[in-house]
Amino acid sequence: MKAAVFGIDVGATNTVIGLVDKEGRIVSQKSIKTDKHQDITLYIEELLSVFKRLEAEYPKYSLKGIGMGAPNANYYKGTIEHAANLLWKGIIPISTLIHEKSSLPIAITNDANAAALGEQLFGGAQGVDDFIEITLGTGLGSGVVINGKLLYGSTGFAGELGHLNLIRNGRVCGCGKKGCVETYVSATGICRTFLELLATETLPSSLRSLGSSEITSKKIYEAAQEGDTLAQKAFALTARYLGEMLADYVSFTSPKAIFLFGGLLNAGEFFLTPVREAFEESCMQVFKGTVSVQSSHLDAASAAILGASALIWKELEK
Amino acid sequence: MKAAVFGIDVGATNTVIGLVDKEGRIVSQKSIKTDKHQDITLYIEELLSVFKRLEAEYPKYSLKGIGMGAPNANYYKGTIEHAANLLWKGIIPISTLIHEKSSLPIAITNDANAAALGEQLFGGAQGVDDFIEITLGTGLGSGVVINGKLLYGSTGFAGELGHLNLIRNGRVCGCGKKGCVETYVSATGICRTFLELLATETLPSSLRSLGSSEITSKKIYEAAQEGDTLAQKAFALTARYLGEMLADYVSFTSPKAIFLFGGLLNAGEFFLTPVREAFEESCMQVFKGTVSVQSSHLDAASAAILGASALIWKELEK
Repeated sequence: MKAAVFGIDVGATNTVIGLVDKEGRIVSQKSIKTDKHQDITLYIEELLSVFKRLEAEYPKYSLKGIGMGAPNANYYKGTIEHAANLLWKGIIPISTLIHEKSSLPIAITNDANAAALGEQLFGGAQGVDDFIEITLGTGLGSGVVINGKLLYGSTGFAGELGHLNLIRNGRVCGCGKKGCVETYVSATGICRTFLELLATETLPSSLRSLGSSEITSKKIYEAAQEGDTLAQKAFALTARYLGEMLADYVSFTSPKAIFLFGGLLNAGEFFLTPVREAFEESCMQVFKGTVSVQSSHLDAASAAILGASALIWKELEK
Repeated sequence: MKAAVFGIDVGATNTVIGLVDKEGRIVSQKSIKTDKHQDITLYIEELLSVFKRLEAEYPKYSLKGIGMGAPNANYYKGTIEHAANLLWKGIIPISTLIHEKSSLPIAITNDANAAALGEQLFGGAQGVDDFIEITLGTGLGSGVVINGKLLYGSTGFAGELGHLNLIRNGRVCGCGKKGCVETYVSATGICRTFLELLATETLPSSLRSLGSSEITSKKIYEAAQEGDTLAQKAFALTARYLGEMLADYVSFTSPKAIFLFGGLLNAGEFFLTPVREAFEESCMQVFKGTVSVQSSHLDAASAAILGASALIWKELEK
């Protein structure tokens, strides 16, 4: 028998369940609709039936535990709390609910923390004790690792780096505050920057004919590649904002590396090089040259599952 | 024989050496001039002669170690590195130099980290595993404690919270960057805010007749107490800046408490109440009500010595 765990990524639309071994190989994966069940108990029943099918299909694997990455997950309490994008409102004791039915050890954390653990166990942060993982999606998520351990803080919600202030009294953020870095640096943030440039600049752009809701970070990248100056400016500004903010993160925890993950990284060095430039320029003297800023080594398609499985593999080691 | 340590506070002008017992009692303290010796070996000779005098005067105490708080101190390396306010330039291996002569265990850290350890061992943070100590002096120093341990990061210089950005492209900072929070929130920062108000407001103020270099945080406080509206505005702005920044710190490490130390706290609730208001207002929903913001419980006169002694007491426990 070979040891394996279930790594589960709970998204607003889909929940993906992977059977993952200790080397980070995803032996098999299945998915169910997260938003099919308003009732959490029905959702968990369906989840359990997937567990059974995977166990039946892979009898050579002995299941050791369940790791879950979910929005607004509280590691300490095993709960999902007030997740804006999920149908289940209030505080959902999802760990307890699943454990009661499966009797497997279970651990839960938010998606960005899971990504950090995936990076540590299977990605670029292997052997790195102090690093920060930044996920650039709709928002800016983060997982902070200090002395080899994920930072949870006194509430379990530490590491909300997307909500550090970039510009005082700046853009309205979904969290209710103003000027949070994620309103500038994220797939959504770069679109807002582009909209701002449409207003402040008179340069032509192939994207001026698009409705503002049709503008995406991917389209901005493609336009930039084709020489669209306005789109290039949006990328340059986003890279600068991120580089400056990373310098603040470094003043806080002095990590050895920062890993960037998410769609914006598809732009590769076109994005990374100016991020690194702005970062080194903005760093305090004492930190210059001490931090490696790089793309996540995790594959975009499997990162969430690997991260969730890394969480439970690490728990089982304790 | 009763166990004791030397707690040493290295300031630009004076070095204070305390004989401190395990309960945080300063049995005796002496001081020497830091800036008398350009040559570090002569400074250490004088330091050693003070050790001998204290040992001779208090024969009932058995010396266990030396804790030192110094500007730009590197805990990992036992060095003082490029300290702008000290005569010794470059990298000074002060721990090694002292240890060679005294053969006592020695540990060194910067002043704000020492204050945090003092708070943890002898002050308000006893039994608190996650907290941040903020020292408001010429600058804004900080010590960050996570899971009971001081945060040093990969370089040993983590926790430079005074150099997180408050206002993008804001005031020039001594560190070479712009808009660092310490240029707004510190004894110096409030004076700069007051100068700014002298320019932007037309309100009368008893301090308008002073040369700008004569303005001090103490005079601003006294004027505010006497009803000077401009001085009150400077305090209100400083409190707001600090409260907003604390909210960012909390998004990062989610501490249970924040302790504020330094001259500005002499203003008591006149300063603390608006800090707390701005802080709670600026906190992310998930952190509201989870953090206690309070004055340090350490006595201003002895905090540095106690902090330095706490450092070595904690090392000896390891």
